[in-house]
Amino acid sequence: MERKVDVAIIGSGTSGLNAMGQTRRAGKSFVLINGGELGTTCARVGCMPSKALIQIAEDFSRRKIFHRFGILGEDSLSLDDAHAMEHVQDTRDIFVDRVLAGSTDEMGDELIEGYAEFVDMQTLKVNDQIIKADKIVIATGSTPIVPAAWQQFGDRVLTSDSVFEIENLPKSIAVIGLGVIGLELGQALNKLDVEVTGIDQLEIIAGLTDPVANQSAIDAIGKEFPLWLGAEAEITEEGDMLRVTAGDNSVLVEKVLVSIGRRPNLDRLGLDKLDIELDASGIPVYNPNTMQVGDSSIFIAGDVDGVRPILHEAGDEGKIAGYNASHDEVKAFKRKTPLGITFTEPNIVTVGEAWSALQDRDDVVTAEMPMGPVGRALIMAKNKGVIRVYAEKSSGKILGATIVSTKGEHLGHLLSWCIEQGLTVHDLLRMPFYHPTIEEGLQAALYNLLKEVDARPAPLLELEELSA
Amino acid sequence: MERKVDVAIIGSGTSGLNAMGQTRRAGKSFVLINGGELGTTCARVGCMPSKALIQIAEDFSRRKIFHRFGILGEDSLSLDDAHAMEHVQDTRDIFVDRVLAGSTDEMGDELIEGYAEFVDMQTLKVNDQIIKADKIVIATGSTPIVPAAWQQFGDRVLTSDSVFEIENLPKSIAVIGLGVIGLELGQALNKLDVEVTGIDQLEIIAGLTDPVANQSAIDAIGKEFPLWLGAEAEITEEGDMLRVTAGDNSVLVEKVLVSIGRRPNLDRLGLDKLDIELDASGIPVYNPNTMQVGDSSIFIAGDVDGVRPILHEAGDEGKIAGYNASHDEVKAFKRKTPLGITFTEPNIVTVGEAWSALQDRDDVVTAEMPMGPVGRALIMAKNKGVIRVYAEKSSGKILGATIVSTKGEHLGHLLSWCIEQGLTVHDLLRMPFYHPTIEEGLQAALYNLLKEVDARPAPLLELEELSA
Repeated sequence: MERKVDVAIIGSGTSGLNAMGQTRRAGKSFVLINGGELGTTCARVGCMPSKALIQIAEDFSRRKIFHRFGILGEDSLSLDDAHAMEHVQDTRDIFVDRVLAGSTDEMGDELIEGYAEFVDMQTLKVNDQIIKADKIVIATGSTPIVPAAWQQFGDRVLTSDSVFEIENLPKSIAVIGLGVIGLELGQALNKLDVEVTGIDQLEIIAGLTDPVANQSAIDAIGKEFPLWLGAEAEITEEGDMLRVTAGDNSVLVEKVLVSIGRRPNLDRLGLDKLDIELDASGIPVYNPNTMQVGDSSIFIAGDVDGVRPILHEAGDEGKIAGYNASHDEVKAFKRKTPLGITFTEPNIVTVGEAWSALQDRDDVVTAEMPMGPVGRALIMAKNKGVIRVYAEKSSGKILGATIVSTKGEHLGHLLSWCIEQGLTVHDLLRMPFYHPTIEEGLQAALYNLLKEVDARPAPLLELEELSA
Repeated sequence: MERKVDVAIIGSGTSGLNAMGQTRRAGKSFVLINGGELGTTCARVGCMPSKALIQIAEDFSRRKIFHRFGILGEDSLSLDDAHAMEHVQDTRDIFVDRVLAGSTDEMGDELIEGYAEFVDMQTLKVNDQIIKADKIVIATGSTPIVPAAWQQFGDRVLTSDSVFEIENLPKSIAVIGLGVIGLELGQALNKLDVEVTGIDQLEIIAGLTDPVANQSAIDAIGKEFPLWLGAEAEITEEGDMLRVTAGDNSVLVEKVLVSIGRRPNLDRLGLDKLDIELDASGIPVYNPNTMQVGDSSIFIAGDVDGVRPILHEAGDEGKIAGYNASHDEVKAFKRKTPLGITFTEPNIVTVGEAWSALQDRDDVVTAEMPMGPVGRALIMAKNKGVIRVYAEKSSGKILGATIVSTKGEHLGHLLSWCIEQGLTVHDLLRMPFYHPTIEEGLQAALYNLLKEVDARPAPLLELEELSA
């Protein structure tokens, strides 16, 4: 059985669905092919269930500051962990159902469930079906990495794929890998009274290259549970338990959460049959502004391409790939200002150019504001962290920032939108900063930044003069 | 005793201190004259103590959703109201001390404590001292209004000046006047288990002219405690208690919080001796871009001038007035995009042009997004309210918004910064919106707004095409 379409999209996650939207809009015929479970990584095992868990953890852990506020009886609070996990699962199901209802639920034969394999550059095999397509979009996503040696420990080793499925919380867990996922889940589980040990072979957490921000994040989170940094973890069995060792440290735990990274889902595609270039990780070499693989008829989008594994970026990539797969001319699009958020408390947020990328330039200045004295943060009893901002010395143009702060997610939006428009520190200081808000922490950092850049010859810094 | 200075500033609140900063920077001689307590309205009786009270109320009231999350024992929580009020007072004292330490604490004879009265356009009398000044800045602030007939009820009638001083919470209170102050304090007190009745003679709350946003705010807050709208309140004594009647409604309460507005502190100034024009409320007529009263040597700034009674605006006005009082040439400055935040839950936020001001124009379109389905708000169990956005139909330029939403304070910053730069709905939809955030509620409103404005001829709405 052979079928001919204009565009075949492999993967019905966020990027695949966005690619499909563009193909549909262009009036092209298409198939959407999906191996494994329907529903996006975000809704099934990513952003949504993690935020549900974090919300419960945040509410439960606030009891620890109740005594300061005159709220009595916090010792009587306890967690029904089975109920909590059920709430997480129910919440997740709502979002998964929403995704399906808005996409694949009523698709008919444009949706094919099965794993696609390339036969040649314009031919796929799915189940017993041959699909001929002028253009093909690869949007197969990624999968958590678990080293082969650890797979023997069975369901005592969890990943973000399995952690939201557990019915009861373990008494103890080691979280190996302190990127976004490890930190979010590790902190949430610790707030839910699981004994958490955080481990990473690097000395940095949340991928922070800014040493001041990194230390501030380590200080804040390291007060809540131990962080073992700079040594590789090993796991051995001890009866029903697992012993996790890293450097001189060792702990016996019920479970291990492995969050050391994700690998692109490329194994089943049979890319070896294609005339395309692969990089060292086996990922097709592509142009991030067109999502085109080489100058071929193949496009790639979403987490499978190994960069910017973030929902809104996967959406953008799907749109670009879908648009270009559906039009004769391949167009290049500007990618958005980078914005990364780790939803810990304090939030850990990176915006624009990373601190490490700016170290080669000699016209870059940095300034900071610690969150300790920021009024609103103090009132919230969440005054931890630091805001670090980077600018061009000559112009004062904002280049990037690292934010370790409560409500940093919102400051990240503010700053990324400003960087998107090429604004300077002077421009920002003329914006309204309401009182008392967390935005005033950013304002203080900007005032400090101003001292480092060339002064503006204006009569009043915070107010634009009207022309006479 | 007569003293001669370049600039005399009457009032050491936010605007007075900012005026002083400019005078100092310009190298002019000055005196700062303050009647009554030192410390700003914001720190003493405004933003700061109210936020401290709201934070406790928010934390205490979250227990009501604990059962959904599997958190047990919420019935055991209780409030030590004396401890809570002490915390509010301690927090306030920290901020007042900070203000004083940063300003008047070490000023020597440049600070005069006493009430200033004009002798003529360039002469003031304070205590027994005569001050001659080339320029004078009036920054005397404002005072809560309490009708004369209600003053007989003594300390059973509270205002924002006295409410933070009470040692114990009353069992019941009527809040008369549902502007920012009445709503913030009324909701906080209700969350602290005070029986609150909210009353306003108008049918609108928080000054909302947008009928959809107003109704949404009434629905959200009216579920928590009764709101009696559209009838004037009367108070009578019943034993130790007060009976408050409005229209057909009547309630017996321990205390009444009067929050019907603030009057400018002008009575003691002796303005009648001056050759300046006063408006119908007795406020000197001034230019809001120069803060100059007529073309005189007198300037005015802050809450006393009757508009934009908000800290950052008072700061701006102080800077403008202080700058112009300290320089020969009077410069005009652009005022910031209006931003008003009521720190209720949901926040009530107005940005840019008010809905009422746009009703005269025929090229204005409106769109909205209810917060009910917004993922993150749902996860937080705070999915109440609506986001309303207004734009120019032809260009899509954002003109204003009314936001009734949790974390609306942050959306208010985002939108006001965008309006400040004249951005369009298309510009905004190209910005990064992280997932899952409250900013996605704004994004959804913007997508709805887009349908109402002229379409942009771009291949991909959310991504800018790179020039070839």
